[in-house]
This record gives sequence, structure tokens and C-alpha cells, in this order.
Amino acid sequence: MLNPQLQEFGLHLKKLRLARGLSQEQLGLIAELDRTYISGIERGVRNVSLTNILRIAQALGVPPAELFNAGDQ
Amino acid sequence: MLNPQLQEFGLHLKKLRLARGLSQEQLGLIAELDRTYISGIERGVRNVSLTNILRIAQALGVPPAELFNAGDQ
Repeated sequence: MLNPQLQEFGLHLKKLRLARGLSQEQLGLIAELDRTYISGIERGVRNVSLTNILRIAQALGVPPAELFNAGDQ
Repeated sequence: MLNPQLQEFGLHLKKLRLARGLSQEQLGLIAELDRTYISGIERGVRNVSLTNILRIAQALGVPPAELFNAGDQ
């Protein structure tokens, strides 16, 4: 069963990634995470860990809090 | 080996918890997480998952982004 909170997080991550013109593969390479893992987060099927949240934020060049600010945009 | 980023997250969580006058046990009860798990997060030895980050934020009554705003305070 899909978790709406994970889906919201994933959709927001996707927006941030696309705004930077990055493919899932490119983001994965920068963050040193597999493309399929990035894909799973964006679809809300992966319950990403804190260390990977921090790694993705760094790869996108945003403060980690930004990944949670879906409602602000 | 301790991860400084997890430690920073944990210290900030501890501050937010204490500012609300909650014990680890009380926060655990509200968030439906074990006290020892809360303790592990605060000490930076637990790599907490996204769903548990969201659960803790809700229990503290703060937006999830607030858990990452250690530098702002």
C-alpha cells in the first residue's frame, strides 16, 4: 500500500530534480545512489533513510529542510 | 563510527523535545516509537527512516523541515 506522505516527498524531490535539469541517473551518480533507488523514492515506494536524505539534499545543492517544503511552493 | 550529520540531527531533536518538556519515553509514546529508538536517534547512532522522521515531527507538533533547521537556532 502506498504511503501518501512518501508520495508527497517523492513528488517534491522530482520537482527539485527536474528544476535542476537532472535525470534520475545523473542525480544518482552525484549522490552515489542507484538510479532505481532514486526512482523508488520519487514514486513513494522507498522509505529513504536520514543519511540518504542528507546525501540527496547535498547532491541537489539544497538544505535538507528544502526536501520537506513541498507545501511552500 | 559515529556520523556527525546523524549526531547533529539527534542533538537538534533533543533540543526540540526538551523545549516541549517531554521525556524520551513521552515522545516515544506519542510517536508510537520505542524510547530506546528515540534515545538512539538523539545519540546519532540510529539512521532514522523518512516515515519515522514524519512521525516524530507530528508528535512534536512541528513541520518535518523544522527537524533539519539546527543551524537556524
